[in-house]
Amino acid sequence: MPDFVLDARLQQDCLPITDFPLCRLLMMNDARFPWFLLVPRVPGAHDAIDLDADDYRRLWDESGELSRAMRTAFTPHKLNVAALGNQVAQLHVHHVARFRDDAAWPRPIWGEGAPEACDESLVAHRRGELLAALPGRLRPH
Amino acid sequence: MPDFVLDARLQQDCLPITDFPLCRLLMMNDARFPWFLLVPRVPGAHDAIDLDADDYRRLWDESGELSRAMRTAFTPHKLNVAALGNQVAQLHVHHVARFRDDAAWPRPIWGEGAPEACDESLVAHRRGELLAALPGRLRPH
Repeated sequence: MPDFVLDARLQQDCLPITDFPLCRLLMMNDARFPWFLLVPRVPGAHDAIDLDADDYRRLWDESGELSRAMRTAFTPHKLNVAALGNQVAQLHVHHVARFRDDAAWPRPIWGEGAPEACDESLVAHRRGELLAALPGRLRPH
Repeated sequence: MPDFVLDARLQQDCLPITDFPLCRLLMMNDARFPWFLLVPRVPGAHDAIDLDADDYRRLWDESGELSRAMRTAFTPHKLNVAALGNQVAQLHVHHVARFRDDAAWPRPIWGEGAPEACDESLVAHRRGELLAALPGRLRPH
């Protein structure tokens, strides 16, 4: 089995936050939305069902953990959870905290305008709020 | 606990296919994409994490079953699996079979042009192909 290597575009567009037992947790560098990605560290997976049964359950358990932490940290009106992957083949699951006054509401965020890079204080704020809401066993990346 | 009632807009836009143990399976009435929805029959759920731990796992287990059946039935290039719910609050998870020559590729399908109603033969074809690929315990709705 080859080593896991994060897709180059995800590496470029996102900031690493921490590792769950299965997934790398990334934050999308876009000031408009609190937007996090789970990327299973499993080479060659494109769709969630490419994972074996144990890892498939782990992915959605970790998605649940992340979702609960995002709800606590950002108190959004709605969570958007999506595995699309039409442009980046490596399996990744978007988690976006949505607000009625955000830049795309009520439309989905993909293809909606251009990302706006976060400044350092926003990165620190979002990362801090999320990590504070995640189970204690997770350490910053 | 009140009875489960399918959201009026889902009822209008979709055709019922079958019931999984947790979810109602619907087919979106859009000729452009093989597009199915899982709707947990749990009143009041908006986000997946609103389900209790058993139902949360059931939802993603059923999503995996549906995804595998869609891969068998339609041999897409990619599956898109998404719980958005910005416009219809009742928890529902989209499952879309995507092809490199479809009407929206590589963009997400939401907000991409207008749905095109399926004629009866397309409905029968898609329903038949999907049900043939699902475990035998499921019966047509």
